[in-house]
Amino acid sequence: MLDQKDNCHGIGSGNSEDHDTLTQVSTLSALLNGVYDGEVTLRELLSHGDFGIGTFDHLDGEMIILDGQVYQVKHDGTVIQPDLSLTTPFAVVTSFDIDEHHQLVSGTTFDRFERDEDTLLPTRNIFHAIRITGTFAKMVCRSIPRQSKPYPPLADVAKQESVFPFVDVEGTVVGFRCPQYVAGINLPGYHLHFISADKTAGGHVLDFTVGKAEVAVDYMPEFSMMLPQTDAFYASEMQHDKDADLGAIERDIPHDALVVMHRYL
Amino acid sequence: MLDQKDNCHGIGSGNSEDHDTLTQVSTLSALLNGVYDGEVTLRELLSHGDFGIGTFDHLDGEMIILDGQVYQVKHDGTVIQPDLSLTTPFAVVTSFDIDEHHQLVSGTTFDRFERDEDTLLPTRNIFHAIRITGTFAKMVCRSIPRQSKPYPPLADVAKQESVFPFVDVEGTVVGFRCPQYVAGINLPGYHLHFISADKTAGGHVLDFTVGKAEVAVDYMPEFSMMLPQTDAFYASEMQHDKDADLGAIERDIPHDALVVMHRYL
Repeated sequence: MLDQKDNCHGIGSGNSEDHDTLTQVSTLSALLNGVYDGEVTLRELLSHGDFGIGTFDHLDGEMIILDGQVYQVKHDGTVIQPDLSLTTPFAVVTSFDIDEHHQLVSGTTFDRFERDEDTLLPTRNIFHAIRITGTFAKMVCRSIPRQSKPYPPLADVAKQESVFPFVDVEGTVVGFRCPQYVAGINLPGYHLHFISADKTAGGHVLDFTVGKAEVAVDYMPEFSMMLPQTDAFYASEMQHDKDADLGAIERDIPHDALVVMHRYL
Repeated sequence: MLDQKDNCHGIGSGNSEDHDTLTQVSTLSALLNGVYDGEVTLRELLSHGDFGIGTFDHLDGEMIILDGQVYQVKHDGTVIQPDLSLTTPFAVVTSFDIDEHHQLVSGTTFDRFERDEDTLLPTRNIFHAIRITGTFAKMVCRSIPRQSKPYPPLADVAKQESVFPFVDVEGTVVGFRCPQYVAGINLPGYHLHFISADKTAGGHVLDFTVGKAEVAVDYMPEFSMMLPQTDAFYASEMQHDKDADLGAIERDIPHDALVVMHRYL
């Protein structure tokens, strides 16, 4: 649990170790817009954490980083450990350590997990890394195909997803919960990927039902973002900023894109 | 100018020096909600940069950091250099270095500056530190009074501001331009403070007209945020996250608050 002494949980006391930091490459808005060229190597990414999720150069599948190993779930469902010189256009990592953990009730679904966990967390205003280890009566994952230029927007790519339903599978869910205020930068709420215990299957989690599993949560009060310094990112129309009036300061995330973010990302 | 070789401006090449990073304490949403207790000492803040803006514990005035010195513009307009053990609830800093600079046309107003600069920047998708040095035919600043608990929201405090109009004043504008997608986290667009050359006057910039001045811009592709680990921040209602449906994923920043952000913050 968090250290609650003196009504202060520790920031400003100099403990800015990397393991309390969520580090991300690029923004979700850029990915939605088709900025799929890899920017940061997996080797550099691993210098910021041993636990994470993301995608790869050309949007080539789903990334899971667990215990410092990178797994790539391809569109056909196969899993490989890519060379660390491969790059990523969007990824989220941390050095995972456990601040809190508890058993999940058998039969817990993804929806139920989200609702329950939201009430258990001490706050929804910081970042959380989520690891669920155990067996799942049901686990539904998906992956997406590698794209070629000119890159289509993610909403179009998502229609080409492969869905992999698993039954009674053992493995680990790896992911994050981000605060609502990150909309546009990252995905508000839960974003989970899965890798099987034998490392042969996984992907972006669409749904699950727990068999016997434990969730471990890492509370992260620090956030770090590395933005691509490419023309594609620089030119990406991520918001209505042509009009500087106040009315324009709204999220430029149309409902369709939000559906894509939640359903497909 | 940015290094544009190979269509890539440098990220991922390992050059993650602090001077390309905007570092901020807390979120703007939390400040709007009245989370005014200082969290990070000025000493710690200075370890992340020598250039910045913000406010102080109990919302006690306007902060300007220039050349590694911290200036506090109090509600009565006086300027002091506070002890570095003082804390801040919200601040934005970087280690300033110049990526681009140019003269401003005499007569340039704040509004005109914003419009012109937006067209000159290579992108509006990264962070920029803005320094304008010279004389100003007109400079209008303001500061806000120290608050006591229970803290009122910033919209109420803003009504108590003091406004300081200056004529033919020499000094430096210190501030930042943030991308539109930071809404909720920081202020989209330009957020500028001012300190006079003799360090006796300044505050949050409401308006200006350039006499003879040069602007220098620091391009910052990295962003880092340290969130307060206090009950006040944890409990702050920063968004509609009670309702998990997609429709709720919108900015919980009412128009009044946006006006406050632009006019008063």
